[in-house]
Amino acid sequence: MKMKMTDAYSGFSIDFSRMNITWEQLDALQDKFQRAAQEMAALEAGAIKNPDENRKVTHFTDRAVYRSSELFKAVESFAADVREGRIVSGTGKTFDAVVVNGIGGSALGPQLLQFAINGPYWNEKNQTERRNGLKVYFLDNTDSAGLNDLKDIIELDRTLQLCVSKSGGTQETLNNLTALENAYAQAGLDYSQYACAITMQDSKLDKHAKSHNWLKVFPMAESIGGRTSETSIVGHLPAALSGIDFGMFLDGACRMDIWTRNRTYRDNPASMLAAMWYLAGNGKGDRNMVIVPYSDRLVLLSRYLQQLVMESLGKELDLDGQTVHQGLNVFGNKGGTDAHAFIQQLNDGRDDFFATFIEVLHDAEDIPLDNGRSMGDYLHGFLYGLAAALESKKRPVITMEITTVSPANLGALIALYERAVAIYAEFININAFHQPGVQAYKLAAKGMLEVREQLFDNLKERPVSGTAAELAARVGLEDKEAVVAGWLNRAAVNPASYNVERKYSPDANDWVYTVK
Amino acid sequence: MKMKMTDAYSGFSIDFSRMNITWEQLDALQDKFQRAAQEMAALEAGAIKNPDENRKVTHFTDRAVYRSSELFKAVESFAADVREGRIVSGTGKTFDAVVVNGIGGSALGPQLLQFAINGPYWNEKNQTERRNGLKVYFLDNTDSAGLNDLKDIIELDRTLQLCVSKSGGTQETLNNLTALENAYAQAGLDYSQYACAITMQDSKLDKHAKSHNWLKVFPMAESIGGRTSETSIVGHLPAALSGIDFGMFLDGACRMDIWTRNRTYRDNPASMLAAMWYLAGNGKGDRNMVIVPYSDRLVLLSRYLQQLVMESLGKELDLDGQTVHQGLNVFGNKGGTDAHAFIQQLNDGRDDFFATFIEVLHDAEDIPLDNGRSMGDYLHGFLYGLAAALESKKRPVITMEITTVSPANLGALIALYERAVAIYAEFININAFHQPGVQAYKLAAKGMLEVREQLFDNLKERPVSGTAAELAARVGLEDKEAVVAGWLNRAAVNPASYNVERKYSPDANDWVYTVK
Repeated sequence: MKMKMTDAYSGFSIDFSRMNITWEQLDALQDKFQRAAQEMAALEAGAIKNPDENRKVTHFTDRAVYRSSELFKAVESFAADVREGRIVSGTGKTFDAVVVNGIGGSALGPQLLQFAINGPYWNEKNQTERRNGLKVYFLDNTDSAGLNDLKDIIELDRTLQLCVSKSGGTQETLNNLTALENAYAQAGLDYSQYACAITMQDSKLDKHAKSHNWLKVFPMAESIGGRTSETSIVGHLPAALSGIDFGMFLDGACRMDIWTRNRTYRDNPASMLAAMWYLAGNGKGDRNMVIVPYSDRLVLLSRYLQQLVMESLGKELDLDGQTVHQGLNVFGNKGGTDAHAFIQQLNDGRDDFFATFIEVLHDAEDIPLDNGRSMGDYLHGFLYGLAAALESKKRPVITMEITTVSPANLGALIALYERAVAIYAEFININAFHQPGVQAYKLAAKGMLEVREQLFDNLKERPVSGTAAELAARVGLEDKEAVVAGWLNRAAVNPASYNVERKYSPDANDWVYTVK
Repeated sequence: MKMKMTDAYSGFSIDFSRMNITWEQLDALQDKFQRAAQEMAALEAGAIKNPDENRKVTHFTDRAVYRSSELFKAVESFAADVREGRIVSGTGKTFDAVVVNGIGGSALGPQLLQFAINGPYWNEKNQTERRNGLKVYFLDNTDSAGLNDLKDIIELDRTLQLCVSKSGGTQETLNNLTALENAYAQAGLDYSQYACAITMQDSKLDKHAKSHNWLKVFPMAESIGGRTSETSIVGHLPAALSGIDFGMFLDGACRMDIWTRNRTYRDNPASMLAAMWYLAGNGKGDRNMVIVPYSDRLVLLSRYLQQLVMESLGKELDLDGQTVHQGLNVFGNKGGTDAHAFIQQLNDGRDDFFATFIEVLHDAEDIPLDNGRSMGDYLHGFLYGLAAALESKKRPVITMEITTVSPANLGALIALYERAVAIYAEFININAFHQPGVQAYKLAAKGMLEVREQLFDNLKERPVSGTAAELAARVGLEDKEAVVAGWLNRAAVNPASYNVERKYSPDANDWVYTVK
């Protein structure tokens, strides 16, 4: 029996034949498959599958009804009004671009879809070429350079500002919001007349947006996590603003959902995929997942899956409170390019991965080359060549085929991986839907900002000079010398923000700072 | 003694204090350090350090003299002539853009430098904003979609075509070249009047270019490998065409070279870096290298290092012919963004990595936010917060500081990693400068293309129908059913190139093809 599954309607197929895993090994997971099927059914029936946050997990089910919802219509209608100039800027101009200000789950999915469907050069095209679709920019960090680059290129008065934060309290996103509000004010424009938001009702952002009369505030369900929000309004609004057919994207996801609800694991590609990960990595992620789509348009897929998989599965404790330190590393880029990069190691080096090749069957263009071969033939040959080279060394490979890089096929891919992640989480008995490590890190970062204030507020006699150790000691931060040094170095290199100088002392083999 | 090293002149520093590695452990590597120092000296003195290919390895030494060479001047002069309109297109137009057609080492470095120095929106800027620098596009695959996207956006008649292939025989690059030549011909333009090349003298590409009277052909040294070619002409020409100060880039690299030639390992950041990798990964790459620059402009650094490190170190055999399956996985993206992506796993999940954080001390813009904090303060706090969170769990972290994202600092970073890779290779006794796995894969890919011809050439009676197994059997390819199925699926989805249809047979649970 072949280890290959095909959906004839979409042309999607997935082939596990090169994984060196037998049906016997799979059958031995019967209990796990059954438990996962039960738990997935419970999840879809509304169980609290994210117990730490006391939340249901509804991304699989909400998308089945989303397309016929009032919210869907409202988003389509708002986006059409913006694209077609019925909603205009504060000074009456049509919007030409949108900035999506969001991080993590609020950015990675929209970035993937935008790049895959509209291509790498969308923002360089004119309005006609974009069929009135908006240019799309992303602010997905809190880096002044990223914001500066963006402000340099956009025309504030023709740019819609979309702020996306489920909790409404994401610091990076709020930082960009504050900076953008200031930039608009400096330009004599009223930010509110350019702004819309996606956030949970009654969040800090929701209240802020509504009290400032933003153009529009769309609600986001509490039960949909950031990293699984691409099939919700978080994916929808940016897509609709640039003219992507989000309905087709949902269709593809829902079609895959139907397939991956199958309780017979042999007929369920998500169950099979999860089992492959599980068996390949000894149930502990001992093999890295290397994602190689043979498609320039899909170069962001690995980054998207990196979040989906690693943030979901990288957990310290299992559901019983046992320390497990689970996880599954994901990286990749695109084929055939990567054959000239890291794939030397996959061929010859550490045997610590399984590769996933994703082929796009349809050529965007028929480009005839030599010997009756086309460019697409070569790319296909490279994929099969690499698969064969790896197979000959018993290095495991999964291959997938999609017909085209279409919204529907992207929806299917995302839905497949979302389901596989949820099933794998059942296999290893963890909560796939929280992110406690991120919370811990946020607290630590807060502490670092407090050190800054403790340092500079308490260095009252100025000017004062000394090494980081000396200055730390002065303000009772002896145990935080490295952190103090970090702030002092940052301060010394930013005269616009700080009055600190540094000079290297060869004697001390260290910087000596003067705080003025 | 602190485990931190600083170059006061450039402000570059690297801190190993959070690696949980002691000076005693490092001192115990004395023999390895000494051997590596000797071998690096031999390499720089002209030894055949790439024995498989019987080649010297000259990227460390060539760059020290490159800036004062005739070639450097010729590149600067050619680039200035293009930028300033003294060299014009076949119809007399000034060049507005350049397409860099190259893969792997011919693309990753130029992409990194272009994005880091000119920013993400360079190609959207007008000529004045670009100070006459050319827009820069990359063709780094053999994907008809990528080429199609590019042709859609560029104006052929204003675009310089730069073809980069050291060997001159890289199939992907040749494919794009052929396709571009055809595209120019179809537009009634003479490709030769738009084309320049970088390749080894007397290569296939060199001969082709010269016989067709291309605008310019620049020579590339045989002794510089693709993945270490960024400080050579391969990095230079694309940089110069967009106006990047490549001389400063070389200065930064050469300054780092001087530092990293130090024979005392404690004073040599490359020796220290290599030793950290070695100790952290038990000399076998047991820990993944996670690269997290806290800078939007440096988002491509991890992809660049992925090639440099993995292609260099991912080897089956050591220099004595022993099977070792070495390697060192590299992945990453950018901070603080990744804290909302895969860093949940680093905090809580598998303890199988060491992280490298790279801080850019200088804010591109002083963006004041709340409580007297600026955007740069937050980013700094996030970096230190994550470092502290990981440190508290004894998860190893290296931190680096650079003052700005400048050509010189990028040169320094690249030179540091190049040297660390070469030293690590000495530690584990492998050839860091060949890529035998890529050759093996190329052969396999060739075989796959031959299967295509065996299949379609030998299916002489048409129309013929059957499953992949049946059709394979008809032409004596019984043992290659999966490969045959691959070609048939590809064929069926590309009616412009093939006369094949497919229909799913529920009975056979397989596709049935008709080849016409």
